[in-house]
This record gives sequence, structure tokens and C-alpha cells, in this order.
Amino acid sequence: MTRSFQPPQRILMGPGPSDVHPRVLAAMARPTIGHLDPEFIRMMDDVKRMLQYAFRTKNEMTFVVSAPGSAGMEAAIVNMVEPEDKVVVCINGVFGGRMKSIVERCGGVAVPVEQEWGRAIDPNALEDTLKQHPDAKFVAFVHAETSTGALSDAKTLAEIAHRHNCMVIVDAVTSLGGSPLEVDRWELDVVYSGSQKCLSAPPGLSPITFNERAVAHIRNRKTPVQSWFLDVNLLMQYWGGETKRAYHHTAPINNLYGLHEALVMLEEEGIEEAWKRHAENSARLQQGLASLGMEYFVPEGERIPQLNAVKIPEGVDDAAIRSRLLNEFHLEIGAGLGPMAGKIWRIGLMGAASTTRNVLYCVSALREVLK
Amino acid sequence: MTRSFQPPQRILMGPGPSDVHPRVLAAMARPTIGHLDPEFIRMMDDVKRMLQYAFRTKNEMTFVVSAPGSAGMEAAIVNMVEPEDKVVVCINGVFGGRMKSIVERCGGVAVPVEQEWGRAIDPNALEDTLKQHPDAKFVAFVHAETSTGALSDAKTLAEIAHRHNCMVIVDAVTSLGGSPLEVDRWELDVVYSGSQKCLSAPPGLSPITFNERAVAHIRNRKTPVQSWFLDVNLLMQYWGGETKRAYHHTAPINNLYGLHEALVMLEEEGIEEAWKRHAENSARLQQGLASLGMEYFVPEGERIPQLNAVKIPEGVDDAAIRSRLLNEFHLEIGAGLGPMAGKIWRIGLMGAASTTRNVLYCVSALREVLK
Repeated sequence: MTRSFQPPQRILMGPGPSDVHPRVLAAMARPTIGHLDPEFIRMMDDVKRMLQYAFRTKNEMTFVVSAPGSAGMEAAIVNMVEPEDKVVVCINGVFGGRMKSIVERCGGVAVPVEQEWGRAIDPNALEDTLKQHPDAKFVAFVHAETSTGALSDAKTLAEIAHRHNCMVIVDAVTSLGGSPLEVDRWELDVVYSGSQKCLSAPPGLSPITFNERAVAHIRNRKTPVQSWFLDVNLLMQYWGGETKRAYHHTAPINNLYGLHEALVMLEEEGIEEAWKRHAENSARLQQGLASLGMEYFVPEGERIPQLNAVKIPEGVDDAAIRSRLLNEFHLEIGAGLGPMAGKIWRIGLMGAASTTRNVLYCVSALREVLK
Repeated sequence: MTRSFQPPQRILMGPGPSDVHPRVLAAMARPTIGHLDPEFIRMMDDVKRMLQYAFRTKNEMTFVVSAPGSAGMEAAIVNMVEPEDKVVVCINGVFGGRMKSIVERCGGVAVPVEQEWGRAIDPNALEDTLKQHPDAKFVAFVHAETSTGALSDAKTLAEIAHRHNCMVIVDAVTSLGGSPLEVDRWELDVVYSGSQKCLSAPPGLSPITFNERAVAHIRNRKTPVQSWFLDVNLLMQYWGGETKRAYHHTAPINNLYGLHEALVMLEEEGIEEAWKRHAENSARLQQGLASLGMEYFVPEGERIPQLNAVKIPEGVDDAAIRSRLLNEFHLEIGAGLGPMAGKIWRIGLMGAASTTRNVLYCVSALREVLK
């Protein structure tokens, strides 16, 4: 007979999931109700309004994809891009590469803007590419590239894209709730995120927002959206503004309870206060890591405060150190992904994990295992 | 400020989600750990083994799609079907129609076998269609059609399909764990389900299984799978048999805790005992409904024990009655879906909701509100 699973208590300072607050965990265990129950619909309206607050947007089409951030990426792309559409995709890490793959899988033509990994996207490189491809319809980029720790200038990239008559599709999986993100002021057309990063809800959901221009574009597509599950035309009937909601798929009820509670906590703290907390704890961690002689992978000014990518010191056994941190200190930090494996560690300070206590604990634990 | 959401305590006797047992709810609230944590990988192996038990299969490629049952349907179809492939789709309700839509969205040619709603699929009609379409590659059908309450003979339909050199894609969303389903003995090639029906875990996950023939087919596709998120070639690296697991997407950790606990409970009860319990409680409900003069929508012998579709009595206000049940009795029963709206109610006795207590309560509550 299989026994019930009792997970160990970890401190999650990797690239996500981040620590989930006990209030959010408690919400996950509340009794399941129906996905068309009037009480549940009321809760969905709360979630939508609080997501508008977190995204800094008034977009009516703000909702939650019932699957993790990667599905949010796919939802953004398959709804916007039609076969033959040209999409300029900025690539400075794993997630930019994933965007390119999804563009191609829906028949789009991806034009990459390649950038050295660990650096922000160069706005000039984007501009040059757009000049060479005046028929491009979209620019896709990752705001905070989780695989390398580099933060790009979303505002400037969007301005350039719009100047060249392109809409932007923005990956804000790691930035939402952790560093400034202004969907309306920066005029970002489509933005998706994940529940398990700076919002500190369990993984499994992808908040997403489409502005009016994007919604109009989807309504006027010539071809059907290739995914039934992610088709915004259908999802609107469930998450839409009207009182009468139509069944599309069964929403992940308890996950939405968790996200609701996480958003209530964000509202209580205030989004700008949350950004400030993430910045301050990151500065504190930088000092601590410097005292250990560790170096950042990303140049100053291009770093994601909530995801600190540092070079693995010379002669150190990557896997052995991470195993010791996990087994002796119950501390999870992130390995390098893809070509970064064995070269960097990714230390997250996201959401509920972004605390002074975690900063000091992590630095002390690293000091122990590296000595 | 938004307040925390405290859902009401309902009794879920609709078409799903079903009542979630307190043990499963408690599991949902356990501390989140990383999706590559060795302890989590161990738990995934448990889930896989217990799903093999529930599906009655030895299929190595048995895993969980990180999204609800509709995404499981999409995963089954987009991995198997390539553009121009001919798929015979049996349609006797909403979910057969959804299969057809997904086949078409991935460029397949859907050949419908239309069946009166509320009846099982007629094996002769399938055979006739296959004779007319000797180039068909797949047969897709819904085992237990949730929108009408009709149970089809999966074993016979699969035999016919195989005789005509077609693989079968089977929707077992409502049947898994509730009525006999024999993936290996019936030689079902691809079968998907949902967490929120007879397994009684919260919604958001879709157990799925591919036999060796199906996996070989996917490996030999000529075109890439159109969905990155659902691509089995990529998912194999995370759910695969090897010890080393590669990151694909971030799994919905806490949901999987819930499903794990629900499967532990199924193992404790025994799958055949669970089938028996569902059949017995359904028989008891039939007696009770008969005593109220209510009639079943589906002929005897073609009914899903765990989802009882009954005709709404003449002169009764559908919405008003369901509202009273919800508000006065905290009892959710299902409305009719699509063309069935206003014509039938769907009374579920699934998973943890399949109890004598619920049967008696539901009949008594109906007696009150219908008098």
C-alpha cells in the first residue's frame, strides 16, 4: 500500500516555486465548490480585479489560464499569431527560445534577435531587426529572463515595437509582483505570468491580460485558434464581464482559492511596497554574496532583483553543494538551465520567500557549505 | 480591501467537481516543494504507479497533464493526429463534439458518427462508417458522456476500430474510478481522464495513458506536435522512467499532492470495490427517483452509474429548483448542457460523493422542493 505523501519543509530560494505563505496553503484546503457556483463566480471577479491591480491595467480581458506559466506563454502566442505571421522574438535565455518554438509550432515565422545570455535585450538590436523586417506583426520578449537573471527594459522595447507597428507579447512570469511592471503605462498588448513566482501561490496557474487592441485582433482572426483549451474567444464566455457565464472547461477551483488569497495579501501590502521589499532584500543578498567573494552573472543595472544569478565559484562541485544545501539546510537554490548548467546558481527571493531572514540564512548556509 | 474567500460548504452531486474528501483537502495544503526536488520525483513515481492501477494498465507512458480534463483531451488528440489524418469521431453529446473540434483544429479530417443524444454509441454505426472510410487512422469516442449520462461499450468499439486498423482515443473523464475501465484488456491506445470526477481530487489535472503503439506513433510523427505545452515527446523527459528528470514546465505541486492522496484512498478501497460502490449507490438513487415519479433520460443498460441524467418533470422551473437546492440545501446538481439545457438534470454520485447518505439526502431534498 502506498502511504500518504508528507513533503519535507523546504525554504524555496530557487527560480520558483517560491515559498507559499501559510495563509495561501490554508486557502488551498478550503472545500471545493462548483465552477459555476454563484459564490465561485464572485470569487473569480475578485481575482480578476486584483490581477488588474497587480498588472497595473484596466484591461477587461484579464484572467487566469488554468495551467502553468508555459501554458500562459502558449495562450498568448496561439491567440495572437496566425500562420505566416512574422514575429520578432528577442532571445537572451531559455524562455525566449521557448517563445520562438511556440511561434513556429503555430505556423508563424520567427525572426530572432539574439542576445548574449545574461544580458538585457539590446533595444538597438531590436530596432535594427524591425527595420529589416517591416512586415513583422509582433515583437515577443521576456521581461525577466528566469534562466539567466537578466531584466530587460520592457517600456523601451514596447515603444520601439509600436513605432514599427508591431504589437508586443511579454513574458512577465518572474517579474509580476516583484519588480515594476506597468501594463497600461507601457502599453503592453499581451502579458502573461505565473502563480508560483512573486505572487507566491502554488504553481499551476497563469495570470494573463490582453488589451483592447489585442482582443480586437483575436476577434478578427482569419483562422481558428489552434488550441481549443486556450482559445480566448471561448474563454471570454467563462471569464467575461457578463453575469451569465458559460461552461468552457472545469476551472482548478482550489488553485484559484490559493491565488485569491495570495492576491489579497499583495493588496494588503501594496504593489509598490512589494516591489520595494524585493529590491531591498536583493540588495542585502548582494552584499552577503559579495562578502563570500561570489560574483553576479549579470552586469549591474540589468539584474532581476528577485532572481539573483551568480557564478559558481571555481573548483566547486555544483550538484554536491546544492544537495548539501537541500539535505542539511532544507534550502533549495536553482541550478543553471540548459547551457548555463554547472555555470551559475539562481537564488530567488520571490514573494513570501523575499525576507531578511531568508537572505541571512542563505548567506550563512552558503558560507558553511563553501568553506 | 478584498477579503479572504471562505467558500460555502456544498454537497457536490453535479457532473463534477465531486465532493473532495477532507484527507485530500488536507494534502492540498501541505508545504510546496520544488518540482525537481528528489522527494517530489518520488511522489510523482507513486502517482504514476497508482494511476496504472486505476487505469488497469502497465503502460509506461502514464502520467498527469498539468491542466484540466479538456487539456487532457487536447493532449491526446494533438499528439496522435497529424494534418490530413482522418479521424472517425463518435458523437453522442457535448464532449464528442469537442473532440471533433480539436481534431479539426489540428488539421485532421473528422468523420462523425452521429448518435442520438442520451444513447450509447451504436457499434454497427461505427463499423459502417469505418467501411466507408478505409483510410481512417483513428477512432475517438467518449466512454461516459458527461453531458447526457450515456455509457458506451468501450471494449466493443475498440475491437471494431482495431479490426479496421485504427487506434482509439478514449475520453474516460467520468468513467475512471467509477465504472469498469480496462485499458490493457480492452487494448485502448490513448485514454485520458480528469481529477475531479470519480477520483474526487480537486479539478485541474488530467491523468492520461498511452500504450506502446501510441508512443511509437508519436515518436514517428512527420510533423511536430502543434502544442509545446502538451507535447508528449517533451513531457517524457519529466515524467519518464529515468532517474534524471529534465525541466519542462513547473508542475502544479499541491494539486499533485491532492491527487496522490485521492489515489492512496482508491488503493485502500480497491478499484473493484469502488466500481461496486458506485453501482450500488446509483441503484439506490434510481429507486429513490422512481419513488418521486422521475424518469431517466438514458435507457436502462446504457446508463453511467455515477452520473444519473433524469428528465426535468413537466411544469417544473429548472433554474428555480436548482437555486433552491443550492441555497436551502447546499446541494449542487447539474443542469443540462447545450441542447440538453432545461430538459435534464444530471445527478452525480462520484468518488467521495457516492455515499448512501448523499443518495438519501438528495432524494429527500428533491421531494421537498418538487412538492
